[in-house]
Amino acid sequence: MGTKGKVIKCKAAIAWEAGKPLSIEEVEVAPPKAHEVRVQIIAAGLCRSDTHVINPKFEGAFLPVILGHEGAGIVESVGPGVTNVKPGDKVIPLYVPHCRKCKFCQSPLTNFCTKFSEHKNPIIEQELMDDKTSRFTCKGKSIYHFLGISAFSQYTVVKDINLAKIDDDANLKRVCLIGCGFSTGYGAAINDAKVTPGSTCAVFGLGGVGLSAVIGCKTAGASRIIAVDINSDKFAKAKALGATDCLNPRELNKPVQDVIVEMTNGGVDFAIDCAGGSEVMKATVDCTTVGWGSCTFVGVNVNDKGLTISPVELILGRTLRGSSFGGWDVDTVPKLVSDYKNGKFNLEALVTHTLPFEKINEALDLLKQGKSIRTILIY
Amino acid sequence: MGTKGKVIKCKAAIAWEAGKPLSIEEVEVAPPKAHEVRVQIIAAGLCRSDTHVINPKFEGAFLPVILGHEGAGIVESVGPGVTNVKPGDKVIPLYVPHCRKCKFCQSPLTNFCTKFSEHKNPIIEQELMDDKTSRFTCKGKSIYHFLGISAFSQYTVVKDINLAKIDDDANLKRVCLIGCGFSTGYGAAINDAKVTPGSTCAVFGLGGVGLSAVIGCKTAGASRIIAVDINSDKFAKAKALGATDCLNPRELNKPVQDVIVEMTNGGVDFAIDCAGGSEVMKATVDCTTVGWGSCTFVGVNVNDKGLTISPVELILGRTLRGSSFGGWDVDTVPKLVSDYKNGKFNLEALVTHTLPFEKINEALDLLKQGKSIRTILIY
Ligand SMILES: [Zn+2]
Ligand SMILES: [Zn+2]
Ligand SMILES: [Zn+2]
Ligand SMILES: [Zn+2]
Repeated sequence: MGTKGKVIKCKAAIAWEAGKPLSIEEVEVAPPKAHEVRVQIIAAGLCRSDTHVINPKFEGAFLPVILGHEGAGIVESVGPGVTNVKPGDKVIPLYVPHCRKCKFCQSPLTNFCTKFSEHKNPIIEQELMDDKTSRFTCKGKSIYHFLGISAFSQYTVVKDINLAKIDDDANLKRVCLIGCGFSTGYGAAINDAKVTPGSTCAVFGLGGVGLSAVIGCKTAGASRIIAVDINSDKFAKAKALGATDCLNPRELNKPVQDVIVEMTNGGVDFAIDCAGGSEVMKATVDCTTVGWGSCTFVGVNVNDKGLTISPVELILGRTLRGSSFGGWDVDTVPKLVSDYKNGKFNLEALVTHTLPFEKINEALDLLKQGKSIRTILIY
Repeated sequence: MGTKGKVIKCKAAIAWEAGKPLSIEEVEVAPPKAHEVRVQIIAAGLCRSDTHVINPKFEGAFLPVILGHEGAGIVESVGPGVTNVKPGDKVIPLYVPHCRKCKFCQSPLTNFCTKFSEHKNPIIEQELMDDKTSRFTCKGKSIYHFLGISAFSQYTVVKDINLAKIDDDANLKRVCLIGCGFSTGYGAAINDAKVTPGSTCAVFGLGGVGLSAVIGCKTAGASRIIAVDINSDKFAKAKALGATDCLNPRELNKPVQDVIVEMTNGGVDFAIDCAGGSEVMKATVDCTTVGWGSCTFVGVNVNDKGLTISPVELILGRTLRGSSFGGWDVDTVPKLVSDYKNGKFNLEALVTHTLPFEKINEALDLLKQGKSIRTILIY
């Protein structure tokens, strides 16, 4: 290709400061260095984590930044030493790296990698490449990467260890959702909670991640799926995807966990928190049955004080675990893409809007107002 | 026997009020009613939970009470409907009932039973028989049972669902420890944490339960066992049982979790909290590795505010669970008794003192002063 080894000028959405709309600008994208890959983004979803770091309340954000971590694209060129992908390959960049060398990558117990551990807050990881520089420049200024992906640019540079190579016939306008929201919720149910056939489940928060957790519970054969959100507009979709009951805590006259315990005669087998925050975390624990109640935490509410739990709640048989990117990694994501092609699950239902990339601020507004599950941006 | 169906007069240690020594008195022990068994206690250990309820700070204790929940004895007589034991059988009473009818008893996932659920605090359960009366009378007053056992009486009445029938040749002066402390710690490591061969472990609190957790980690094949206690006098015994390192948080110039993380280059695989309390619970979580750190909570520190945990600590791969009586029940305890006979583990090391039952207050003092692991009371 004519662009290999050269700087590419293209459009990107830049967050110059917190609390302001993104700004579509021309950026310069440097060629990939060793073990880096330059990717042309074809489609991307907008996930709530993108909005968190530009919330003025968020502390520690790296700005200016190119956000976006749920994209799919095509390899434009590769830097020295890259062996897992070649130009023309379809890829999904993952914010979860997989170096294959650390003790975590070599264990089947986790998708964690030592390359993902520099900051205490996992949504401000991988803001620079390994040489501590950025590949993005705009108006003479260096622009931070986001989660090692920065999908809100027509071209981006990603480390080879963050790339899943997928089937050539994959529909990038759908499988981009496998880059974050879908996999995170679906995997939380399937891989981490390990929901069992005939079980009862509760899912808190019905955004893209929560609805995907509903899909996961349904796919795993749960007989009852109680979906919880403070926005009742989400319920029609949740029911379409498999929820058997929907509850809005703001419309109840007692705590939602008490209602769930009554409905299920003692509590659900599995609860998955896709919302986050102390209150929801507490409800997640309290709505599960003694004996074997399984609580899986996916949502991270920034600057929240977390969960306070008495040992008695644990000793009576509950288990608490977290789930990060649904337990998937670059080796298992390609299988997920095939599963989608083979009809094992449906991504259509998560897509409420499709917009050209340039209308990204409109997509952000739809998300903030709770009017969209996922807007797919087309580049 | 001549006593069947009659009231038995015998010696028992009565806690009339909190903060006072126990009082050895003559009590009347009524015959067992339906599904009840009268047991002659031969030997009993003294466990920390016995002391908690008579701590003046404890709220909600049922007094006066006959304590003791780590005993072994011989069936004297049985009430109508009892089929699992007969007079002359050796038995260990368990505070964990096993009704065989509830959904918990029918599941392999838990040793919890719906019959064990009336109070929020598990150390004040089963203070009366099913008909809401006591079988103990002293000086005309009804005396409460304790955890359905009340081993600190020469004769006691226990529900059939709380009795494990054990081998006729079992050494009651040792296997009484299987009634609580040993099984709780050993099972926390073996059944709940499921410690794996070659793993690194940390055990907090080196009383009878904690030392038994060390035995469990060792039996499971852990390659490194870090034992933690604020009383360094416990370390010789911990090392004899398999601890490879011993740490006293009061002798360190930084938090014990930081020291453990450094010693293990990132944290242990398994941590077991046999002490309880917010601070130790926090250390238990923080000393485990990201990726797969497993935290098992055994200790309940009465009136403590519990653990506060950020979702990030979970999302990076940690799992939290509780362990109650080490996951054992009346069906699995007999196997544990055989395992002891066959030398799979050693109970001798836990026994630091042996005293006649009448010297129970001396045994209490030894425990409070941290001078004993277990005193075996001989009746
Ligand atoms: Zn996301
Ligand atoms: Zn790695
Ligand atoms: Zn005990
Ligand atoms: Zn039961």
